[in-house]
Amino acid sequence: MSAARLAIVAGAGAGLGQALLHHFQDQGMIAVGLARSPDPDLIDLDIRACDVSDNEDTAPLLADLIRDHGPPRIVVHNPASLVIQPFLDTAPHEFETCWRAMVLSATVLARATLQPMVRGGGGAFVVSGATASLRGSARFAAFASAKFALRGLTQSLAREFQPAGVHVVHTILDGIIDTPKSRAMHAVDPSRMIDPADIAQAYWHLAHQPRSAWSHEVDLRPYSESF
Amino acid sequence: MSAARLAIVAGAGAGLGQALLHHFQDQGMIAVGLARSPDPDLIDLDIRACDVSDNEDTAPLLADLIRDHGPPRIVVHNPASLVIQPFLDTAPHEFETCWRAMVLSATVLARATLQPMVRGGGGAFVVSGATASLRGSARFAAFASAKFALRGLTQSLAREFQPAGVHVVHTILDGIIDTPKSRAMHAVDPSRMIDPADIAQAYWHLAHQPRSAWSHEVDLRPYSESF
Amino acid sequence: MSAARLAIVAGAGAGLGQALLHHFQDQGMIAVGLARSPDPDLIDLDIRACDVSDNEDTAPLLADLIRDHGPPRIVVHNPASLVIQPFLDTAPHEFETCWRAMVLSATVLARATLQPMVRGGGGAFVVSGATASLRGSARFAAFASAKFALRGLTQSLAREFQPAGVHVVHTILDGIIDTPKSRAMHAVDPSRMIDPADIAQAYWHLAHQPRSAWSHEVDLRPYSESF
Amino acid sequence: MSAARLAIVAGAGAGLGQALLHHFQDQGMIAVGLARSPDPDLIDLDIRACDVSDNEDTAPLLADLIRDHGPPRIVVHNPASLVIQPFLDTAPHEFETCWRAMVLSATVLARATLQPMVRGGGGAFVVSGATASLRGSARFAAFASAKFALRGLTQSLAREFQPAGVHVVHTILDGIIDTPKSRAMHAVDPSRMIDPADIAQAYWHLAHQPRSAWSHEVDLRPYSESF
Repeated sequence: MSAARLAIVAGAGAGLGQALLHHFQDQGMIAVGLARSPDPDLIDLDIRACDVSDNEDTAPLLADLIRDHGPPRIVVHNPASLVIQPFLDTAPHEFETCWRAMVLSATVLARATLQPMVRGGGGAFVVSGATASLRGSARFAAFASAKFALRGLTQSLAREFQPAGVHVVHTILDGIIDTPKSRAMHAVDPSRMIDPADIAQAYWHLAHQPRSAWSHEVDLRPYSESF
Repeated sequence: MSAARLAIVAGAGAGLGQALLHHFQDQGMIAVGLARSPDPDLIDLDIRACDVSDNEDTAPLLADLIRDHGPPRIVVHNPASLVIQPFLDTAPHEFETCWRAMVLSATVLARATLQPMVRGGGGAFVVSGATASLRGSARFAAFASAKFALRGLTQSLAREFQPAGVHVVHTILDGIIDTPKSRAMHAVDPSRMIDPADIAQAYWHLAHQPRSAWSHEVDLRPYSESF
Repeated sequence: MSAARLAIVAGAGAGLGQALLHHFQDQGMIAVGLARSPDPDLIDLDIRACDVSDNEDTAPLLADLIRDHGPPRIVVHNPASLVIQPFLDTAPHEFETCWRAMVLSATVLARATLQPMVRGGGGAFVVSGATASLRGSARFAAFASAKFALRGLTQSLAREFQPAGVHVVHTILDGIIDTPKSRAMHAVDPSRMIDPADIAQAYWHLAHQPRSAWSHEVDLRPYSESF
Repeated sequence: MSAARLAIVAGAGAGLGQALLHHFQDQGMIAVGLARSPDPDLIDLDIRACDVSDNEDTAPLLADLIRDHGPPRIVVHNPASLVIQPFLDTAPHEFETCWRAMVLSATVLARATLQPMVRGGGGAFVVSGATASLRGSARFAAFASAKFALRGLTQSLAREFQPAGVHVVHTILDGIIDTPKSRAMHAVDPSRMIDPADIAQAYWHLAHQPRSAWSHEVDLRPYSESF
């Protein structure tokens, strides 16, 4: 496992995706991001244009990366499509869009990477959850439904692949992640937000837990966050 | 609310759907089932051919029923599409089929009925969950993911519509439901299965809880079921 | 089971205990309450002075009742000792008092009644939980700790005694119960509180669920309660 | 906070307590264990004879340590009193013994250490939970009830002390911890047990999470453990 150097981040936008890629690079990984429309400002990162909810688009790209670099050491599923609006204002197609972006994409990512990690002798598959993974609040029907789905999927993957040596983790990011977008959106003191670099460090740590003591679900929140 | 006489059961097959429709009929309701392909053996029940995951198909049918009979007193979401197989044998399109049948159908059903119930002064919207709503077991990735999604959706609907007077309930049916199909599939003594008539009675009771003491989530399992 | 006529309510004060006893009486039961200091105003009810956390005090009293009237049809554990204060203001002996009143009392009650119910062919043992059974809020250390303990105990009893035919239920009473004391304490419109008579009706219903479809945990809250 | 060098482990027996003390020592801490009867074989560790459920015994000892070494950097609550037997074979006094050893001891430990940590500018308070913290199995009534209580207490402490800068963590140790005692008791391959040294490393890591991303509840289990 020690030789594995590939790190994949699906959902590689400014903020968390970016911080993950930087952290993995700093650890000596070949860090590759996947994003529907890579942010042109993130020029120092290797981010490929790819619709992760589309297996035809994603599978060959990941197969190529694995052929060139070996099976991944860590894979992170990160895409979130935040929808906050009354249920009756949310059309069925918006539920579908949300589910494709957040859940179908995870099945596609898992299909392409889990088996190579099993064959390669290990690795970690980390899925970013949220408060909405545990609680369906008013006005969060589409988002919570997708985040719940992702949690059920991740549990099932853990129970299926952990005995084969791949560590599957679900995180609960319970707070506002400090990004330029969050600062514009929320009137919250940034010192009360989650620093994406701290999440990256936590994910890296999880990916290196000894196999006698793996965590499956971990919450991360600012010390000041009420919960 | 007392005048409301319409009862809708989406997922009206032999077994639970059938038992629900019979029970509601016995209580004096106009009980209408929805099923993709109504079972020709259930001739004593009013079951309409309708793909509940398709809003174009479902919305007009429900609008007609509501125009004729008033807003529903009880609506049950019941469709389940059981998939049990290793994750790597489950194609992305099977995840989608499962999600459409079980989750998108609930959004379509809720869109067509919640607002009329609010206007009509109340009613109950009951969603059938399962063990897999709380736990993603190995080989249950598609099914558990959809059942989790349904639970998140239902929680969100409860928080949005209960203050407006519509009771939204999620059940955990934790055991094998006694149907001809189950008896053929499982080597379990039927006395250790859940009697669908008992579920119907439980749903009817939930729909009539006084509004000072509503249940949102209720588990139902045979006395002999380990859990 | 049909012949069983004894109903026991431990924690038989004004409010919920009183409503439970009245409801059980109205259903033709011999309803007996247990309270450390029976409320002299509840003269129409049979409430015995008894410290339920004291096995020496309680066991003989219950043995006498069972000898005279047969095993109970329903037993309710209800005593709550609400402590809301900062952790550092709560002395260790207050934790102990709270635990004895709420948890040790349940073990004493269960010891004296479960085995007779098994021998008598059934019955229900219902434990009243609260929001604090699921969530340890700030300033609720003693109370939440005891309510959590009670939930763990009740789950264990369910798994041990349900296969022997005794239905063990844990409820989550998530809201303010409408009692004279609550009205004095909280500036909440009573129409947004839980009516104790509605809880009594719910408990009675739970005690009569058919054994193919037993609920173990049920939440009850006012339609207007946010959760 | 950086200057704090004291590490306290309540429940300092062979196995986990021992591994925690060794790990903290290796990190340069002044590591002090508390045990009712210190194991004479653990001569290389500083373990004090102390009944942590007794405030009169414990408070002065901890006050002395804090006066000499400053507020603790990390405090671990570890005592477990495993009781596995049918409910009817478990006397009320056994419930009490179990609760005092596992829950009252945590309140005593928290009383003596949290406020000094707040004044000292931080630190971590880690409570060892188990599978039985989340699930009351048959024959586990006393143990699960105490472990549930401990979880409720810990949640409450987190919500009360985290905003003041003390990190409060509850772990779920879901598996058999590899100790000489476990090897004698269980016919499980030690490679499928949790290595106590790995738990120690995980606790140390938790105590050093940056405060923008604190975990409150973390599960740890062997890769091969079904869950």
